[in-house]
Amino acid sequence: MCQLLGMNCNVPTDICFSFTGFQARGGLTDHHRDGWGIAFFEGRGARVFLDPMPSVESPVAELVRHYPIRSLNVIAHIRKATLGEVRLENTHPFQRELWGRYWIFAHNGHLRDYAPRLSGRFLPVGDTDSELAFCHVLDTLAQRFPEPPAPAELFEALRELAAEIGAHGTFNFLLSNGERLFAHCASLLSYIVRAAPFAHAHLADQDVTVDFNDLTTPDDRVAVIATTPLTDNEQWERIPPGTLLAFHLGMPEAHAQTGAASAENVTNGA
Amino acid sequence: MCQLLGMNCNVPTDICFSFTGFQARGGLTDHHRDGWGIAFFEGRGARVFLDPMPSVESPVAELVRHYPIRSLNVIAHIRKATLGEVRLENTHPFQRELWGRYWIFAHNGHLRDYAPRLSGRFLPVGDTDSELAFCHVLDTLAQRFPEPPAPAELFEALRELAAEIGAHGTFNFLLSNGERLFAHCASLLSYIVRAAPFAHAHLADQDVTVDFNDLTTPDDRVAVIATTPLTDNEQWERIPPGTLLAFHLGMPEAHAQTGAASAENVTNGA
Repeated sequence: MCQLLGMNCNVPTDICFSFTGFQARGGLTDHHRDGWGIAFFEGRGARVFLDPMPSVESPVAELVRHYPIRSLNVIAHIRKATLGEVRLENTHPFQRELWGRYWIFAHNGHLRDYAPRLSGRFLPVGDTDSELAFCHVLDTLAQRFPEPPAPAELFEALRELAAEIGAHGTFNFLLSNGERLFAHCASLLSYIVRAAPFAHAHLADQDVTVDFNDLTTPDDRVAVIATTPLTDNEQWERIPPGTLLAFHLGMPEAHAQTGAASAENVTNGA
Repeated sequence: MCQLLGMNCNVPTDICFSFTGFQARGGLTDHHRDGWGIAFFEGRGARVFLDPMPSVESPVAELVRHYPIRSLNVIAHIRKATLGEVRLENTHPFQRELWGRYWIFAHNGHLRDYAPRLSGRFLPVGDTDSELAFCHVLDTLAQRFPEPPAPAELFEALRELAAEIGAHGTFNFLLSNGERLFAHCASLLSYIVRAAPFAHAHLADQDVTVDFNDLTTPDDRVAVIATTPLTDNEQWERIPPGTLLAFHLGMPEAHAQTGAASAENVTNGA
C-alpha cells in the first residue's frame, strides 16, 4: 500500500516538517521504495517533483526537504507498485489541466476490473489504474460541466465518482485544483487541523520535534492529511472509510458518504 | 529576449554540461532573471523543474546541474518577462497531455494582437502569450487528428501553425512529445550535432571544458539547440529565420520554411 500526504492551508505554508517524516516511509521506516512525488500549488501554478528512486535515497527529496516552498495545497505520494512498472510515467502525483486550472491527483489502493470509457480528452500516459481513474474523473467533470461548477456541485460530482470508481477496489485518493483539496478515504486516511494555540509536534518516523509557535502567526490554519498520523504526540482524526472530505483554507469544508469503503489494508496502519 | 535550450539524442544523455553554461545566462552572464525551467522526458514520463527565481540563485538549478538525469529529449528556458508577471504559472516550459503523451513547450519572443479561438480543451493557466500559443497548437492538432498522425503529417501541421502564429510577432519555440523535438527559428536559434569522433568542448558562459570522449560511446549522437551557441570552440549551425526543424535520434530529420521570420532581436546574439 502506498503512502499519501496532503496539506491545505489558509496562508502559504511550507511542508518541510511533515515531509521529513513522510520521506522516511520511502525505504527507511516503511518499504515503499518504488518512487515518490510531490506537487505544490503556488498561485495558479503548480510544481511537481517526481522521482522513480526511493525517497530516502533521492536527491530531489533532499531538495524538497530543505527548500521551503510555501503553498496553500500540497499532495505527495510514496509508491509501492502494484499495477504498472516502476517508471517515471507511473509515478504519482499526476497532473492535468481542466478549465484553465491545474489538477493534481494521487491514489493509494488497487482497482480491479476497472475499464472506464474515456472520450479521449484525458488519456493516461503510463499504465497505472490510478492515472486511469484520474483521467476518468476529469473526463466526467469536463463532460458534465463546460464551465467550472460551484463548489457544492463539484463536491457532489466527486462524491458520485468516488462511489463509482471505489466500487472496483480500494480508492483512497487526494485531489486538488489549487483551491480545495479533496480527500477520499476508502480504508486508511487521517487528518489533523493545526491552529492557535500552536504546540510542539514530534514526528512518528524520525526523532524530530518542531514548535509551531516559532513558524506561525495566530491566524494560520493548516490541515495535514496522511495515510497514517505523521506525529506521535498530537490527536489525529481517523477519517471513516467511505467518506469524501473537502478541505478549504485549512479546515474541512464538506463531507459526504460514498459507500466506497474497503476492508483492504485497514489494519496496515500506525 | 528569453533563452532557449533543447537536446535530442539517440541514447539517454545528461545535459549537465550544457546546462552549466545555460544556467549562467539567468542572471550571471545575461540579464534574464525572471525565472527558469527545464523538462526531461524519461520513457513516456516527463519531469518538469520550474523556479520563478533567477537560475543562478536557484537551488533547483543547482540540483539539476549536479543530478545527471538521462533523457532523449530536454527543453529548458530562462525567462525575461515581457507579457505576464513573474509567477510560477507563467514560467516555461509548459506541459500538457495529448493522445496519451506529454507535450512540452517553451517560447522565446513576443506575439501581438494574438487572440486565437480555443475550443476549451486546452486553456492557459497563466497569462503569457506563450502558453496561449501552446494551447492553440495542441487544440488545433487535437481537432485535426483524433489519433496521433504520422510524423510527416504532424510536421506539416506544425509548419502551418508556426506560420500562422508567427505572423503575430516573434515565435522562436521548442516543442517535444518525447519522441521528436521541433525547433522553430523566427529570429535566433542555433544547433550542433555531436557524434564520433568526439572532441573537447569549452563553454562560452563559464570557464568549463568537457571531453566528450570520456562520456560517450562511438554510436552516441546528440543534437543541442540553443538561442545562441553554448560553446566557443565548436561549429554551431545558425538556423535560418523562418525555419522549422524536426530532430529525431540526435539529428535533424526534416526542415521546412514557415515564412515566419522576425527581425526582432536578430542581433541580440553571441
